[in-house]
Amino acid sequence: MQRIAIDMDEVIADVMPRFLELYEQRFGKRLKPEEYWGKKVYQIPGADYIRKAIYEKGFFRGLPVMPGSQEGIRELMEQYEVYIVTAAMEFRNSFEDKYDWLREHFPFIHWSNIVFCGDKSIVQADYMIDDHAFNLERFSGKPLLYTSSHNVGETRFRRVGNWQEVMAYFRAERR
Amino acid sequence: MQRIAIDMDEVIADVMPRFLELYEQRFGKRLKPEEYWGKKVYQIPGADYIRKAIYEKGFFRGLPVMPGSQEGIRELMEQYEVYIVTAAMEFRNSFEDKYDWLREHFPFIHWSNIVFCGDKSIVQADYMIDDHAFNLERFSGKPLLYTSSHNVGETRFRRVGNWQEVMAYFRAERR
Repeated sequence: MQRIAIDMDEVIADVMPRFLELYEQRFGKRLKPEEYWGKKVYQIPGADYIRKAIYEKGFFRGLPVMPGSQEGIRELMEQYEVYIVTAAMEFRNSFEDKYDWLREHFPFIHWSNIVFCGDKSIVQADYMIDDHAFNLERFSGKPLLYTSSHNVGETRFRRVGNWQEVMAYFRAERR
Repeated sequence: MQRIAIDMDEVIADVMPRFLELYEQRFGKRLKPEEYWGKKVYQIPGADYIRKAIYEKGFFRGLPVMPGSQEGIRELMEQYEVYIVTAAMEFRNSFEDKYDWLREHFPFIHWSNIVFCGDKSIVQADYMIDDHAFNLERFSGKPLLYTSSHNVGETRFRRVGNWQEVMAYFRAERR
Protein backbone atom coordinates (compact mmCIF):
# COMPACT_ATOMS: atom_id res chain seq x y z
CA MET A 1 0.00 0.00 0.00
CA GLN A 2 1.35 3.42 -0.89
CA ARG A 3 1.92 5.92 1.85
CA ILE A 4 0.97 9.60 2.15
CA ALA A 5 2.64 11.87 4.71
CA ILE A 6 0.34 14.75 5.60
CA ASP A 7 1.44 17.87 7.47
CA MET A 8 -0.69 19.32 10.29
CA ASP A 9 -0.39 23.12 10.45
CA GLU A 10 -1.89 24.93 7.47
CA VAL A 11 -2.86 21.59 5.89
CA ILE A 12 -5.29 19.93 8.32
CA ALA A 13 -5.09 22.50 11.16
CA ASP A 14 -5.95 26.03 10.12
CA VAL A 15 -3.50 28.41 11.78
CA MET A 16 -4.49 31.54 9.88
CA PRO A 17 -7.73 32.42 11.77
CA ARG A 18 -5.77 32.36 15.06
CA PHE A 19 -2.98 34.52 13.61
CA LEU A 20 -5.51 37.05 12.31
CA GLU A 21 -7.25 37.13 15.70
CA LEU A 22 -3.95 37.78 17.48
CA TYR A 23 -3.19 40.59 15.05
CA GLU A 24 -6.62 42.13 15.49
CA GLN A 25 -6.35 41.97 19.30
CA ARG A 26 -3.30 44.23 19.27
CA PHE A 27 -3.87 46.44 16.22
CA GLY A 28 -7.66 46.63 16.29
CA LYS A 29 -8.05 45.83 12.61
CA ARG A 30 -8.57 42.73 10.50
CA LEU A 31 -5.72 42.13 8.08
CA LYS A 32 -6.60 41.91 4.41
CA PRO A 33 -5.12 38.96 2.47
CA GLU A 34 -2.94 41.31 0.37
CA GLU A 35 -1.26 42.51 3.58
CA TYR A 36 0.14 39.06 4.40
CA TRP A 37 0.38 37.64 0.90
CA GLY A 38 3.84 36.21 0.25
CA LYS A 39 4.69 35.94 3.95
CA LYS A 40 3.67 34.65 7.32
CA VAL A 41 1.47 36.98 9.38
CA TYR A 42 4.17 37.27 12.04
CA GLN A 43 6.60 38.63 9.44
CA ILE A 44 4.54 41.84 9.17
CA PRO A 45 6.45 44.66 10.94
CA GLY A 46 5.39 44.78 14.60
CA ALA A 47 3.70 41.36 14.51
CA ASP A 48 6.60 39.19 15.68
CA TYR A 49 4.77 38.73 19.01
CA ILE A 50 2.49 36.35 17.10
CA ARG A 51 5.44 34.02 16.48
CA LYS A 52 5.96 33.86 20.25
CA ALA A 53 2.38 32.68 20.77
CA ILE A 54 3.21 29.46 18.93
CA TYR A 55 5.50 28.48 21.82
CA GLU A 56 2.73 28.79 24.43
CA LYS A 57 0.67 25.92 25.80
CA GLY A 58 -2.77 25.85 24.28
CA PHE A 59 -1.95 27.49 20.95
CA PHE A 60 -2.30 24.34 18.86
CA ARG A 61 -5.16 22.86 20.89
CA GLY A 62 -7.83 25.28 19.73
CA LEU A 63 -7.08 25.54 16.00
CA PRO A 64 -9.97 24.96 13.61
CA VAL A 65 -9.91 21.94 11.31
CA MET A 66 -9.10 22.70 7.67
CA PRO A 67 -12.37 22.31 5.76
CA GLY A 68 -12.69 18.96 4.00
CA SER A 69 -9.62 17.42 5.61
CA GLN A 70 -11.51 14.97 7.84
CA GLU A 71 -13.65 13.56 5.03
CA GLY A 72 -10.65 13.64 2.68
CA ILE A 73 -8.33 11.70 4.97
CA ARG A 74 -11.03 9.17 5.74
CA GLU A 75 -11.39 8.53 2.02
CA LEU A 76 -7.62 8.41 1.40
CA MET A 77 -7.27 5.84 4.18
CA GLU A 78 -9.30 3.37 2.11
CA GLN A 79 -6.56 3.27 -0.53
CA TYR A 80 -3.40 4.54 1.19
CA GLU A 81 -1.47 4.37 4.43
CA VAL A 82 -1.89 7.88 5.83
CA TYR A 83 0.66 9.32 8.25
CA ILE A 84 0.34 12.68 9.97
CA VAL A 85 3.83 14.17 10.07
CA THR A 86 4.30 17.41 11.94
CA ALA A 87 7.46 19.36 12.72
CA ALA A 88 6.53 19.67 16.39
CA MET A 89 10.02 19.26 17.84
CA GLU A 90 10.81 23.00 17.89
CA PHE A 91 7.77 23.49 20.14
CA ARG A 92 8.05 21.48 23.33
CA ASN A 93 4.73 22.87 24.55
CA SER A 94 2.88 21.75 21.45
CA PHE A 95 3.21 17.96 21.92
CA GLU A 96 0.22 17.28 24.13
CA ASP A 97 -1.89 19.93 22.36
CA LYS A 98 -1.21 18.43 18.95
CA TYR A 99 -1.82 14.89 20.19
CA ASP A 100 -5.09 15.85 21.90
CA TRP A 101 -6.19 17.84 18.85
CA LEU A 102 -5.64 14.82 16.61
CA ARG A 103 -7.48 12.51 19.02
CA GLU A 104 -10.43 14.89 19.04
CA HIS A 105 -10.67 15.75 15.36
CA PHE A 106 -9.10 12.69 13.70
CA PRO A 107 -9.89 9.83 16.11
CA PHE A 108 -9.82 7.41 13.16
CA ILE A 109 -6.06 7.95 12.73
CA HIS A 110 -4.21 5.43 14.91
CA TRP A 111 -1.33 6.66 17.08
CA SER A 112 1.03 4.40 15.14
CA ASN A 113 0.51 6.73 12.14
CA ILE A 114 1.44 9.98 13.89
CA VAL A 115 4.96 11.44 13.69
CA PHE A 116 6.35 14.41 15.61
CA CYS A 117 9.69 15.33 14.09
CA GLY A 118 12.04 18.15 13.31
CA ASP A 119 13.68 17.64 9.95
CA LYS A 120 11.19 15.84 7.69
CA SER A 121 13.90 14.37 5.46
CA ILE A 122 13.77 11.35 7.81
CA VAL A 123 10.30 10.50 6.44
CA GLN A 124 9.85 7.70 3.94
CA ALA A 125 6.63 7.91 1.96
CA ASP A 126 5.29 7.96 -1.58
CA TYR A 127 3.49 11.31 -1.31
CA MET A 128 3.93 14.33 0.93
CA ILE A 129 1.40 17.13 1.38
CA ASP A 130 3.01 20.15 3.03
CA ASP A 131 2.87 23.95 2.93
CA HIS A 132 6.64 24.34 3.32
CA ALA A 133 8.82 24.08 0.23
CA PHE A 134 11.85 23.18 2.37
CA ASN A 135 10.11 19.96 3.44
CA LEU A 136 9.19 19.04 -0.14
CA GLU A 137 12.64 19.90 -1.55
CA ARG A 138 14.31 16.97 0.17
CA PHE A 139 11.46 14.53 -0.29
CA SER A 140 12.09 11.64 -2.68
CA GLY A 141 8.42 10.80 -3.33
CA LYS A 142 5.78 12.92 -5.05
CA PRO A 143 5.43 16.35 -3.41
CA LEU A 144 2.22 18.37 -3.14
CA LEU A 145 2.43 22.00 -2.00
CA TYR A 146 -0.60 23.02 0.02
CA THR A 147 -1.21 26.70 -0.68
CA SER A 148 -0.63 29.09 2.18
CA SER A 149 0.04 32.85 2.23
CA HIS A 150 3.77 32.35 2.69
CA ASN A 151 4.26 30.00 -0.29
CA VAL A 152 2.35 31.78 -3.06
CA GLY A 153 5.59 32.63 -4.90
CA GLU A 154 6.74 29.01 -4.99
CA THR A 155 6.63 27.42 -8.46
CA ARG A 156 8.61 24.16 -8.15
CA PHE A 157 5.85 21.89 -6.87
CA ARG A 158 2.43 20.65 -7.88
CA ARG A 159 0.07 22.86 -5.93
CA VAL A 160 -3.20 22.09 -4.11
CA GLY A 161 -5.31 25.01 -2.87
CA ASN A 162 -7.77 23.14 -0.68
CA TRP A 163 -8.89 19.61 0.20
CA GLN A 164 -11.13 19.33 -2.85
CA GLU A 165 -8.01 19.73 -4.96
CA VAL A 166 -6.14 17.18 -2.83
CA MET A 167 -8.89 14.64 -3.43
CA ALA A 168 -9.10 15.41 -7.16
CA TYR A 169 -5.34 14.84 -7.41
CA PHE A 170 -5.48 11.41 -5.75
CA ARG A 171 -8.54 10.32 -7.71
CA ALA A 172 -6.61 11.11 -10.90
CA GLU A 173 -3.54 9.23 -9.57
CA ARG A 174 -5.57 6.07 -9.12
CA ARG A 175 -7.01 6.15 -12.61
CA MET B 1 26.36 11.87 5.01
CA GLN B 2 24.93 8.53 6.14
CA ARG B 3 22.22 8.49 8.75
CA ILE B 4 21.80 6.42 11.91
CA ALA B 5 18.41 6.14 13.62
CA ILE B 6 18.88 5.37 17.31
CA ASP B 7 16.11 4.18 19.62
CA MET B 8 15.72 5.64 23.13
CA ASP B 9 14.36 3.05 25.58
CA GLU B 10 16.76 0.20 26.31
CA VAL B 11 19.32 1.70 23.90
CA ILE B 12 20.24 5.14 25.31
CA ALA B 13 17.75 5.23 28.22
CA ASP B 14 18.05 2.33 30.63
CA VAL B 15 14.57 1.15 31.56
CA MET B 16 15.59 -2.03 33.36
CA PRO B 17 16.73 -0.50 36.70
CA ARG B 18 13.35 1.23 37.03
CA PHE B 19 11.46 -1.97 36.18
CA LEU B 20 13.47 -3.92 38.78
CA GLU B 21 12.80 -1.22 41.39
CA LEU B 22 9.06 -1.35 40.70
CA TYR B 23 9.14 -5.13 41.06
CA GLU B 24 11.09 -4.98 44.29
CA GLN B 25 8.72 -2.37 45.77
CA ARG B 26 5.79 -4.76 45.52
CA PHE B 27 7.41 -8.18 45.92
CA GLY B 28 10.23 -7.26 48.28
CA LYS B 29 12.88 -9.08 46.29
CA ARG B 30 15.33 -8.23 43.55
CA LEU B 31 14.70 -10.21 40.37
CA LYS B 32 17.59 -12.29 39.06
CA PRO B 33 18.37 -11.97 35.34
CA GLU B 34 17.29 -15.56 34.68
CA GLU B 35 13.82 -14.68 35.99
CA TYR B 36 13.17 -12.12 33.22
CA TRP B 37 15.39 -13.57 30.50
CA GLY B 38 13.51 -13.93 27.22
CA LYS B 39 10.77 -11.51 28.25
CA LYS B 40 9.94 -8.06 29.54
CA VAL B 41 9.82 -7.69 33.32
CA TYR B 42 6.11 -6.83 33.15
CA GLN B 43 5.40 -10.17 31.47
CA ILE B 44 6.27 -12.00 34.69
CA PRO B 45 3.02 -13.27 36.30
CA GLY B 46 1.67 -10.60 38.65
CA ALA B 47 3.94 -7.85 37.31
CA ASP B 48 1.62 -6.35 34.70
CA TYR B 49 1.21 -3.29 36.97
CA ILE B 50 4.71 -2.34 35.82
CA ARG B 51 3.46 -1.93 32.26
CA LYS B 52 0.91 0.58 33.57
CA ALA B 53 3.68 2.69 35.12
CA ILE B 54 4.97 3.48 31.62
CA TYR B 55 1.81 5.47 30.97
CA GLU B 56 2.34 7.75 33.97
CA LYS B 57 3.89 11.22 33.88
CA GLY B 58 7.46 11.14 35.13
CA PHE B 59 8.30 7.54 34.23
CA PHE B 60 10.64 8.38 31.36
CA ARG B 61 12.05 11.56 32.93
CA GLY B 62 14.13 9.82 35.58
CA LEU B 63 15.64 6.93 33.63
CA PRO B 64 19.41 6.50 33.84
CA VAL B 65 21.51 7.00 30.73
CA MET B 66 22.80 3.81 29.10
CA PRO B 67 26.53 3.66 29.88
CA GLY B 68 28.69 4.87 27.00
CA SER B 69 25.81 6.20 24.90
CA GLN B 70 26.62 9.89 25.37
CA GLU B 71 30.27 9.55 24.38
CA GLY B 72 29.32 7.10 21.62
CA ILE B 73 26.73 9.35 20.01
CA ARG B 74 29.03 12.34 20.23
CA GLU B 75 31.65 10.37 18.31
CA LEU B 76 29.15 9.03 15.76
CA MET B 77 27.95 12.60 15.09
CA GLU B 78 31.38 13.44 13.68
CA GLN B 79 30.82 11.00 10.81
CA TYR B 80 27.07 10.44 10.62
CA GLU B 81 23.76 12.21 10.86
CA VAL B 82 22.32 10.86 14.11
CA TYR B 83 18.55 10.81 14.69
CA ILE B 84 16.91 9.73 17.92
CA VAL B 85 13.77 7.84 16.93
CA THR B 86 11.44 6.74 19.70
CA ALA B 87 8.03 5.07 19.54
CA ALA B 88 6.53 7.60 21.96
CA MET B 89 3.12 7.91 20.32
CA GLU B 90 1.48 5.17 22.40
CA PHE B 91 2.38 7.16 25.52
CA ARG B 92 0.84 10.62 25.47
CA ASN B 93 2.32 11.38 28.90
CA SER B 94 5.85 10.56 27.77
CA PHE B 95 6.33 13.38 25.25
CA GLU B 96 7.54 16.14 27.57
CA ASP B 97 9.46 13.69 29.76
CA LYS B 98 11.32 12.24 26.79
CA TYR B 99 12.03 15.67 25.34
CA ASP B 100 13.30 17.04 28.67
CA TRP B 101 15.39 13.92 29.25
CA LEU B 102 17.07 14.34 25.86
CA ARG B 103 17.69 18.05 26.48
CA GLU B 104 19.31 17.20 29.81
CA HIS B 105 21.41 14.19 28.85
CA PHE B 106 21.98 14.76 25.11
CA PRO B 107 21.96 18.58 24.75
CA PHE B 108 24.27 18.23 21.75
CA ILE B 109 21.49 16.57 19.71
CA HIS B 110 19.47 19.28 17.94
CA TRP B 111 15.65 19.12 18.10
CA SER B 112 15.59 18.74 14.31
CA ASN B 113 17.10 15.26 14.82
CA ILE B 114 14.50 13.93 17.26
CA VAL B 115 11.53 11.86 16.11
CA PHE B 116 8.54 10.73 18.19
CA CYS B 117 6.63 8.19 16.16
CA GLY B 118 4.49 5.09 16.34
CA ASP B 119 5.33 2.74 13.50
CA LYS B 120 9.05 3.13 12.69
CA SER B 121 8.65 1.91 9.11
CA ILE B 122 8.20 5.60 8.25
CA VAL B 123 11.89 6.21 9.06
CA GLN B 124 14.43 6.58 6.29
CA ALA B 125 18.01 5.94 7.40
CA ASP B 126 21.08 3.89 6.59
CA TYR B 127 21.40 2.24 10.01
CA MET B 128 18.95 1.55 12.81
CA ILE B 129 19.88 0.59 16.37
CA ASP B 130 16.87 -0.81 18.21
CA ASP B 131 16.01 -3.45 20.80
CA HIS B 132 12.77 -4.47 19.05
CA ALA B 133 12.97 -6.95 16.19
CA PHE B 134 9.63 -5.70 14.80
CA ASN B 135 11.22 -2.30 14.15
CA LEU B 136 14.25 -3.81 12.42
CA GLU B 137 12.20 -6.27 10.35
CA ARG B 138 10.71 -3.58 8.20
CA PHE B 139 13.83 -1.43 8.01
CA SER B 140 15.51 -1.20 4.60
CA GLY B 141 18.94 -0.08 5.87
CA LYS B 142 21.39 -1.99 8.06
CA PRO B 143 19.78 -3.17 11.32
CA LEU B 144 21.54 -3.51 14.67
CA LEU B 145 19.75 -5.30 17.49
CA TYR B 146 20.63 -3.84 20.88
CA THR B 147 20.51 -6.68 23.39
CA SER B 148 17.75 -6.56 25.98
CA SER B 149 16.20 -9.28 28.13
CA HIS B 150 13.18 -9.63 25.84
CA ASN B 151 15.18 -10.15 22.60
CA VAL B 152 17.80 -12.72 23.65
CA GLY B 153 16.15 -15.41 21.51
CA GLU B 154 16.29 -13.31 18.34
CA THR B 155 18.82 -14.49 15.74
CA ARG B 156 17.99 -12.59 12.55
CA PHE B 157 19.98 -9.43 13.21
CA ARG B 158 23.51 -8.33 13.91
CA ARG B 159 23.60 -7.90 17.67
CA VAL B 160 25.26 -5.29 19.87
CA GLY B 161 25.38 -5.88 23.63
CA ASN B 162 26.50 -2.46 24.80
CA TRP B 163 27.80 0.87 23.50
CA GLN B 164 31.37 -0.39 23.20
CA GLU B 165 30.11 -2.93 20.68
CA VAL B 166 28.11 -0.25 18.86
CA MET B 167 31.26 1.83 18.48
CA ALA B 168 33.36 -1.14 17.41
CA TYR B 169 30.79 -1.93 14.72
CA PHE B 170 30.86 1.59 13.26
CA ARG B 171 34.64 1.84 13.41
CA ALA B 172 34.78 -1.37 11.37
CA GLU B 173 32.17 0.00 8.92
CA ARG B 174 34.33 3.01 8.17
CA ARG B 175 37.47 1.03 7.48
